[in-house]
Amino acid sequence: MRLYGGVNILKDNERIDDLEFHNLKIIQNKSWFCFGIDAVILSDFAKNIKHNSDIIDLCSGTGIISILLSKKVFPKSITAIEIQKDVAEMSERSIKLNNLQDIIKVYNTDLNSLGNLLKNNSFDSIVTNPPYKELNTGIQSESLNKLISRHEIKCNLDDILRISSQLLKNNGSFYMVHRPNRICDIICTMRKYNLEPKLIKFVQPNINKPPNLLLIKGVKNAKPFLKFENNLILYNLDGSYTNEVLKIYNK
Amino acid sequence: MRLYGGVNILKDNERIDDLEFHNLKIIQNKSWFCFGIDAVILSDFAKNIKHNSDIIDLCSGTGIISILLSKKVFPKSITAIEIQKDVAEMSERSIKLNNLQDIIKVYNTDLNSLGNLLKNNSFDSIVTNPPYKELNTGIQSESLNKLISRHEIKCNLDDILRISSQLLKNNGSFYMVHRPNRICDIICTMRKYNLEPKLIKFVQPNINKPPNLLLIKGVKNAKPFLKFENNLILYNLDGSYTNEVLKIYNK
Repeated sequence: MRLYGGVNILKDNERIDDLEFHNLKIIQNKSWFCFGIDAVILSDFAKNIKHNSDIIDLCSGTGIISILLSKKVFPKSITAIEIQKDVAEMSERSIKLNNLQDIIKVYNTDLNSLGNLLKNNSFDSIVTNPPYKELNTGIQSESLNKLISRHEIKCNLDDILRISSQLLKNNGSFYMVHRPNRICDIICTMRKYNLEPKLIKFVQPNINKPPNLLLIKGVKNAKPFLKFENNLILYNLDGSYTNEVLKIYNK
Repeated sequence: MRLYGGVNILKDNERIDDLEFHNLKIIQNKSWFCFGIDAVILSDFAKNIKHNSDIIDLCSGTGIISILLSKKVFPKSITAIEIQKDVAEMSERSIKLNNLQDIIKVYNTDLNSLGNLLKNNSFDSIVTNPPYKELNTGIQSESLNKLISRHEIKCNLDDILRISSQLLKNNGSFYMVHRPNRICDIICTMRKYNLEPKLIKFVQPNINKPPNLLLIKGVKNAKPFLKFENNLILYNLDGSYTNEVLKIYNK
């Protein structure tokens, strides 16, 4: 452990990043999967979750989404689910570092076993930044940690949507960031589990490129009525962040 | 009938529009549904259909898509299906006006009865600009002609996709323009009938507005692998057409 602010909090290979939002900080391991803009824009997309809600963060990883949401939404509770023991432990230290342990509880468990741990139909909202890639697709030469974060090894889209539907209250909301090339699986599986897609926002790297991220909101047992938000463009053509992204980053 | 080029071809309320492409022209009735940019961009989206193909145009209306495709794709045949008798008859006159009667045949029939008329698994490609609106939604105070063109009165998305799947050869391609707010129904129903979505292109009115049209290509019995083309932006912020649209219009 290394010292931070007089407390032994950092392990080898770890660093603390300042989230530049409500003085929040996060611990990350340089060899593991580090959060990307995906998590930040999902937290922004989900910012209309009601105050005092009970939220679940599935595949919570470093805890980035739970930590950001704690100060965007001011929920009653966030239940963060992370299957990788070391990652879950690191996120617990980040939560303590931010003094959020009364709001955010981390469970180091397989989300497929949540039915035994949590009560069905009892959560207001779910957020998730799950592994994007199907098994046996994409680069496979990564560390096991990164493989599990990026590929559907421990859980797949069907698992996430089935569990989400079980845990959400009627009319509860589901927020996910994913890849646009999975939109067919996403939409068909959401409908399979009665999570009706209500809002989609595509994210483009710049104005000349097709979307490479998809933000989607579904509502449990809602009637079909889908709206699109204007696409989020991440970068200007000179490589700088667009004003919309700077606003998300509070710049 | 009124004269055009020495021939009696126009009925009351009709006009001839120059398509400014290969000297093509089209007859339209000012009181009926007139084609919009939707049909023009669908014809462009479908321009990679192979030469010498056998194509079906479902809900062919004025014949705009069949007429444009005849000179974009140079197909062997186009079978145009239009349920409204007067509209089908008008489109036949447009086809003769362009001397395309050897390529394009119009059938004035309900597409739900096509199984008796056309051979299953026998067409290379299908294009369709169907009614966008579900029954009992949107403005209902239109003429019957416009209602049938805009609302799912005579056929719905399920009919179109079921019939398309029946008529297409294995690996045949399906091209449709529709509204983004129907994307869930579109994707789920395409998969229901083994028309796997392969390419999506969203269309935005301008850079500051969310997409209001969706171009989608599916391939019968194909494996899942979806790509997105860059969004098509119709207008610059000063209201003029963007260069991409001008290119589609051959300006």
